[in-house]
Amino acid sequence: MDRVRAVLFDVFGTVVDWRGSLIEALGGFGVSRGITADWAGLTDAWRGAYKPSMDRVRRGDLPWTDLDALHRASLAQLLPEFGLHALPAADLDHLTQFWHRLRPWPDSPAGLARLRQRLPIATLSNGNVALLVDLARAGGLVWDMVFGADLFRHYKPDPETYLGACALLGLPPGAVMLAAAHPSDLAAARALGLRTCFIPRAHEYGPAQAAEQATPGSVDLICGIGELADRLD
Amino acid sequence: MDRVRAVLFDVFGTVVDWRGSLIEALGGFGVSRGITADWAGLTDAWRGAYKPSMDRVRRGDLPWTDLDALHRASLAQLLPEFGLHALPAADLDHLTQFWHRLRPWPDSPAGLARLRQRLPIATLSNGNVALLVDLARAGGLVWDMVFGADLFRHYKPDPETYLGACALLGLPPGAVMLAAAHPSDLAAARALGLRTCFIPRAHEYGPAQAAEQATPGSVDLICGIGELADRLD
Repeated sequence: MDRVRAVLFDVFGTVVDWRGSLIEALGGFGVSRGITADWAGLTDAWRGAYKPSMDRVRRGDLPWTDLDALHRASLAQLLPEFGLHALPAADLDHLTQFWHRLRPWPDSPAGLARLRQRLPIATLSNGNVALLVDLARAGGLVWDMVFGADLFRHYKPDPETYLGACALLGLPPGAVMLAAAHPSDLAAARALGLRTCFIPRAHEYGPAQAAEQATPGSVDLICGIGELADRLD
Repeated sequence: MDRVRAVLFDVFGTVVDWRGSLIEALGGFGVSRGITADWAGLTDAWRGAYKPSMDRVRRGDLPWTDLDALHRASLAQLLPEFGLHALPAADLDHLTQFWHRLRPWPDSPAGLARLRQRLPIATLSNGNVALLVDLARAGGLVWDMVFGADLFRHYKPDPETYLGACALLGLPPGAVMLAAAHPSDLAAARALGLRTCFIPRAHEYGPAQAAEQATPGSVDLICGIGELADRLD
């Protein structure tokens, strides 16, 4: 592991708890408006629309569209399914901004700060830069660099994202590690020569859905975000 | 000033002391190799080659070339003028890396940290991302975002840099301030609608050369980096 000179982090699910944060924020919105709904169901459906919406951009069915705009369009489409009336534009903007204030998992801020003492750390997220900057400030996270999909106008797992981040850091892929809670993200990075660390997040999808798992041979490391500094020493 | 929602900083000369740092680093190299030369003169000439080298890229005479590569080429060209033998590739790389470890001006780290408590701060520099990340880590600077010229494949004062940074922050130019020690940089930003702050740096060019000055009407603010937080309150 002595060749790793920078670590990139997936963000949604790996560093922040999108599900718990959104259920709470949407529930708060409901209370403030006197609206009752299945907020957990809406959260899961909203996140469920994430990959298909990015795939439309990746296939070229849509021109480049950042994640804020995809989130907003998915939400507008999902509201009737959950028995909710169409919301005015300002409310759609407000709810979309909930993604800018997702809570870090409890071990993320200290784990990242500790790792950053040893080597540069950066996001490598499908979120846009503005979203990631807001997340970091709200969650007390410090990054050396924020790589958002809008820098590359490509979404992971397109190679332009992983290789683009390595090039901007001035490092060969073999000197860069991706840390993520999602084996598919890690597999795409590994195929391009990056080192990989699976960060288990048992509660990403809530109590009713199984967490993602990585088999030991498929990644270089499996450990918590707080252990990464020691494992890379 | 209540409309400013993020501050971008020019880096070379505004946040870090390129001249003092390079003279010292080159002098140290000279001692280690038993080479005597006019290191201050070489430093000034090296910096003097900065704008013409970027202008070649801006005019399209050179394809996109990042600042590390421009610095390296300028240095190789300047050595004979200063009575120095051609250096092997590894030495040219080593000397070019001195730009990655320029010292912050003494007030920069605390001034930036204080401002960052109030609103997002980012670089907007002609340096490349890898250089800027190294500078920040070496100098104890914390940025919310690092905008380097290689993200835009344009050098300041091309509009793509100023407007590209605003777009990635999700802010209109009027909500973004550029802070810089160089009136020409500020004038370019102002022409595009950004707010501007001139940061006087009396010693940027050393004792024999006059510092740059801004006339009060040409910028929104003139103050030190440590006063910016109060002035924006």
